[in-house]
Amino acid sequence: MPANPAWPPQSAPRLYVDTALGEGVAVALDGNPAHYLIAVMRVKAGDTILLFDGKSGEWAATARDIRKRDLVLDCVAQTKPPEPVPDFWLCAAPIKKGRIDLIAEKACELGVAKLQPVLTRRAVVDRLNLDRLHAHLVEAAEQCGRNMLPELAPMVKLDALLRDWPDGRHLFFADETGGAPIAEALTAHPGPAAFLVGPEGGFDPEERAAIRAHPAAVPVSLGPRILRAETAAIAATAAWMTLNGDWKGFDPQSD
Amino acid sequence: MPANPAWPPQSAPRLYVDTALGEGVAVALDGNPAHYLIAVMRVKAGDTILLFDGKSGEWAATARDIRKRDLVLDCVAQTKPPEPVPDFWLCAAPIKKGRIDLIAEKACELGVAKLQPVLTRRAVVDRLNLDRLHAHLVEAAEQCGRNMLPELAPMVKLDALLRDWPDGRHLFFADETGGAPIAEALTAHPGPAAFLVGPEGGFDPEERAAIRAHPAAVPVSLGPRILRAETAAIAATAAWMTLNGDWKGFDPQSD
Repeated sequence: MPANPAWPPQSAPRLYVDTALGEGVAVALDGNPAHYLIAVMRVKAGDTILLFDGKSGEWAATARDIRKRDLVLDCVAQTKPPEPVPDFWLCAAPIKKGRIDLIAEKACELGVAKLQPVLTRRAVVDRLNLDRLHAHLVEAAEQCGRNMLPELAPMVKLDALLRDWPDGRHLFFADETGGAPIAEALTAHPGPAAFLVGPEGGFDPEERAAIRAHPAAVPVSLGPRILRAETAAIAATAAWMTLNGDWKGFDPQSD
Repeated sequence: MPANPAWPPQSAPRLYVDTALGEGVAVALDGNPAHYLIAVMRVKAGDTILLFDGKSGEWAATARDIRKRDLVLDCVAQTKPPEPVPDFWLCAAPIKKGRIDLIAEKACELGVAKLQPVLTRRAVVDRLNLDRLHAHLVEAAEQCGRNMLPELAPMVKLDALLRDWPDGRHLFFADETGGAPIAEALTAHPGPAAFLVGPEGGFDPEERAAIRAHPAAVPVSLGPRILRAETAAIAATAAWMTLNGDWKGFDPQSD
């Protein structure tokens, strides 16, 4: 690769593609991504485009065969390796459309490794459009510079989540009936973790008892105000990243 | 006041009113709030309604003179005193409609004392509908149980904000050119604070230099990913509440 600091150009469009990337791979694009590159970004033959597939890092590709509605991108070289992502899962009950979309978008930006939808009894929404959530993750990754997409797991029921919970992963959850202040709980429980957030109506008492009884569970308090489900999810994720994740010790000057 | 644990009823509607509340004050309501109580909540004469005006705590009131489109509420007794709110301001550049609304909603839920809109050079939006932002603060306060509304200040230019900055208040801001990890910066700077967040395009280099040169400024890093303006605002507020605000040391069981 040319050790040219001006390459790839900072202004190069950056795009997620659903194709495994690697040196010499040719990516044929049509539909919306092609329209974006051809009509919006006015890409010409030979221009550099940055691509990521969610797991192989970021790649520079060169445009060719530009027609009205499609083009081909040739992968030239990896510009960034797959990035380390902090080992944090967000387990969230489905909530109303705009608000679960917000959880997906912010989870990706904030650095969540896995988004695990969880069905609970008081959920007012019991189906989830995983394609739509995936699209929100992709858009957020394009925006925030992530190359690794958060894993989007299929929805599981709460009892199955608890039954199959992996050893060695803390399960933080906001319990309005009591819990340590989140700063205290996070400091006392470093390492792989997840935060579990219920639906608009919260967990029912039996569910709460089952979560509290789980050996991995760490009940936490998010302060004196009643947070909406998506606010709790975003705030707890930000708190974890701040104290236990990769916001701790990150120095942009050495990046 | 009757020391009756069943009063006021937990199911009582809770509503913001734009009238200074106090014992014996009669609040005449029409329009949307009256429609909500009469048609949606089906309030009858003698029913208890919880009211707050954003500064006088929460009051129980009794409904009377219920007509088709209006009713009167008599303030009976204060049910909660004005609550302490942590001394944290959010200073935010105007951004696109839905996203600045989100900042207002989450600022209120998370516990911000003051929302200060700040005009910066790269702002793509240079006017702000304060009435709409106020409505979002009110709705969030009704939802999260806050009685004190965040103060909503008129928009100021960045240079005026810096010039008139009060002594003794830290001014945290996310600086992509360098800053301490936010956990470190917050721990080193307890006490009254504000977080300043720029518009979609960030601060321009001159603005950044002016902020950094301010004696109150504390540049912080919010990790390796590029956060949208509203994500930075929400995440930094959650981090401050976690480490320096009223989420620290809060025990719901003693509340």
